[in-house]
Amino acid sequence: MGSDTEKSARSAATRDRILVAAERLFAEHGLFAVSNRQVSEAAGQGNNAAVGYHFGTKTDLVRAIVAKHAVQIEELRAAALREIDGSTEIRDWVTCLVRPSTQHLAALGTPSWYARFNAQVLTDPTLRVLVYTEASGASPSLSRLLSGLGSTVDDLPEDIRRARADMGRSLMVHMCAERELRLSGEGDAETTGWTDFGTDLIDAIVGIWTAPVTR
Amino acid sequence: MGSDTEKSARSAATRDRILVAAERLFAEHGLFAVSNRQVSEAAGQGNNAAVGYHFGTKTDLVRAIVAKHAVQIEELRAAALREIDGSTEIRDWVTCLVRPSTQHLAALGTPSWYARFNAQVLTDPTLRVLVYTEASGASPSLSRLLSGLGSTVDDLPEDIRRARADMGRSLMVHMCAERELRLSGEGDAETTGWTDFGTDLIDAIVGIWTAPVTR
Repeated sequence: MGSDTEKSARSAATRDRILVAAERLFAEHGLFAVSNRQVSEAAGQGNNAAVGYHFGTKTDLVRAIVAKHAVQIEELRAAALREIDGSTEIRDWVTCLVRPSTQHLAALGTPSWYARFNAQVLTDPTLRVLVYTEASGASPSLSRLLSGLGSTVDDLPEDIRRARADMGRSLMVHMCAERELRLSGEGDAETTGWTDFGTDLIDAIVGIWTAPVTR
Repeated sequence: MGSDTEKSARSAATRDRILVAAERLFAEHGLFAVSNRQVSEAAGQGNNAAVGYHFGTKTDLVRAIVAKHAVQIEELRAAALREIDGSTEIRDWVTCLVRPSTQHLAALGTPSWYARFNAQVLTDPTLRVLVYTEASGASPSLSRLLSGLGSTVDDLPEDIRRARADMGRSLMVHMCAERELRLSGEGDAETTGWTDFGTDLIDAIVGIWTAPVTR
């Protein structure tokens, strides 16, 4: 009782409860509406300053949630990339972009909150810098993916290629968030699950990449 | 001096300064990082409670910024719709979706802040409800546009049509925000302007609508 090991295990469990509570509150009410005090309460912490003690600021808390998911998505993406190594089909590369995220979301079960949380972070001008920096630093598979995808469309002008890469990523992030909201039961009941949703999203992103350039 | 008319004109000018300052701060730092007090200061108000006095809560302030732009975009969209009345070409309808927004942004001059502000509002789960409600109530042209667009693709299954409509709108909102950020000088200098950007976006959204359905 009260050994350092036990204290450390209790602390890890508390941290995890805080991460889960924060992700849910941010997803449902918004980064802007939720205070560290509310997160501490929702995580069942008697001490309202628990977030500050275990993580620091709200930004530090956001960073910790992002990091937790990044590890898991990175593994799925690295595996997907190994499967299509050397492909010249744009659809294969778009599949590699989409499936690791939808697989990760499916594995989280219903309801999940990560997609809605992530879309907010990537839309916030202050937080996105932090997340993009961490993500590109921590994700060798994403860099490989983007360069592999680019090599299948090297007839497109550079600025169109950049614009379409941005479109594909934006669409994935925000459509996953909207689908998650519907799947969580706040929308209609007959919502397409993650696998069919992923197929529709791949169709659409391939559509963006293969659309004629008119200007 | 000090007549009711003059007081009312001063109050309108103050309100406008607050709206402009708030939009800029929200766009640059995020809805979550900016306080009403900071907005009051940036609007040059000696009284730090000026936002509260003139608007109410932060949510009321957000609502007022949205309403200001909605009037102007509505006019542009109604005019664009009159031009293509009865068209069966999907590209005409997508053009009607995109051009009023890019024209409005172009008219705001550089730098503008509305696109980044708007993307944040539409990604925040609490604020988006408020904005969507106001937007659909106040925008007869948007309803007409969406039903006209839908009628050109009535061979698509209903759920695919709904998914693609959501994708087109999401892409427009978030790509406009990213383009605005680049145009504002925080990115590279050789960024495509609103007209060419609009054409690229129309190409991509037509690409989404016309992509083969594989499931």
